[in-house]
Amino acid sequence: MPRQNIYDNETFFAGYRALRERADNANNLFETPALLALLPTLEGKAVLDLGCGCGDHCAEFARRGARRVLGVDISEKMLAGARRENSCPRVEYRLMAMEDIGALRERFDLVVSSLAIHYVEDYAGLVRRVYDLLNPGGAFVFSQEHPLSTCFSGGERWTRDERGEKLFANVSNYSVDGERESTWFVEGVKKYHRTFSTVVNALADAGFVIERFVEPVPDAAILAAHPEQRDLLHKPDFLLVKAGKKA
Amino acid sequence: MPRQNIYDNETFFAGYRALRERADNANNLFETPALLALLPTLEGKAVLDLGCGCGDHCAEFARRGARRVLGVDISEKMLAGARRENSCPRVEYRLMAMEDIGALRERFDLVVSSLAIHYVEDYAGLVRRVYDLLNPGGAFVFSQEHPLSTCFSGGERWTRDERGEKLFANVSNYSVDGERESTWFVEGVKKYHRTFSTVVNALADAGFVIERFVEPVPDAAILAAHPEQRDLLHKPDFLLVKAGKKA
Repeated sequence: MPRQNIYDNETFFAGYRALRERADNANNLFETPALLALLPTLEGKAVLDLGCGCGDHCAEFARRGARRVLGVDISEKMLAGARRENSCPRVEYRLMAMEDIGALRERFDLVVSSLAIHYVEDYAGLVRRVYDLLNPGGAFVFSQEHPLSTCFSGGERWTRDERGEKLFANVSNYSVDGERESTWFVEGVKKYHRTFSTVVNALADAGFVIERFVEPVPDAAILAAHPEQRDLLHKPDFLLVKAGKKA
Repeated sequence: MPRQNIYDNETFFAGYRALRERADNANNLFETPALLALLPTLEGKAVLDLGCGCGDHCAEFARRGARRVLGVDISEKMLAGARRENSCPRVEYRLMAMEDIGALRERFDLVVSSLAIHYVEDYAGLVRRVYDLLNPGGAFVFSQEHPLSTCFSGGERWTRDERGEKLFANVSNYSVDGERESTWFVEGVKKYHRTFSTVVNALADAGFVIERFVEPVPDAAILAAHPEQRDLLHKPDFLLVKAGKKA
């Protein structure tokens, strides 16, 4: 199966870095806090980060006491950024597609992935490989774009009233799993939509116990500072999942 | 907390019965087959049906070999129908709100509920009570209206093109759990919307292992006979859940 590497595209990479550097981007407001809140204690643990990007999370895992952090990513550019900005003694960065983690021989107490899994076509296969890489009692924590976003297949994303206020999120083809092509800094970015049942059933079939789903929404403080985030009450941007392997 | 009993309203009951008697209603096409497909073998099992209505499912559980079936419902009219149409030696019907099952002293191998749980305000409490009523190794199988339907809070349900074809399901307030009032045969029918994370987390917190989610969609044969069901590819009508209590 093909491994998509948009992050080594110059235009994509520049746009992505500029977006992530904004303090009020959706990742900083919602995704990262929700992901970190789902983590178990990391003292003395071995952690694998799938699609580690520029290594911000890997550095945080080391700060939280992990004895070993392996960050893998398909993008040389991302890993160069990680080595420049987030080098730490107990963190290793390695060029590897998420699809290829079956080749790893070590085992981990935690596998994490932040906003990367929607680029992977074979989700069920990935989930099985993660299960095999975990020690008993270990956990898999990941975030992805929300299924109500990934389902979208063209047209306008919102229905607005005459003043331009968002009334409805336009949902199409939610029930149809599979590839969606979109323009995000560059044309032809491929993401894979999965229904909630696909997300749940692959985890259950692999042997995971599903412990927590989170669909972050703005609290009162965020709404006061960022009133435009009220849209998330109609449709969340992210889904976060925590699943455990029995001890 | 209040227990809603719309089914004893004459107008509602008449409308509901007429709908359910149509062979091609959405329950017969999608919900009932999906629910029955999730059932474990019932030979020698004790089964509790929450919101049993006119007892069609209870009779089926007895046919499948259950040694004991208890159907509870809040509606006298529904139970009168059940006793008239679906009396069986091993089936008992009892007037009881789902919210009150904590009073039951017997234990069950399977708790089933078909399209009733979205009428219950305290979902987490119900899930905990179901868990307590199950024998180890038992299962909880239920169907509900799909969260993309229950979230709706007014206006048009679909955006259509100039020929009237459905382009988008209009989704609003998905992230806002709680009561929705709608007109279904009568005005003021109350249902409770829950996000997928609310559905998942209450089960996980109660101790359940989530085994399967199903969001039924039409297959090729149903689409050929009922082309109007193509809408379900945008938005399913039902969510079905199977969760297990550890043996």
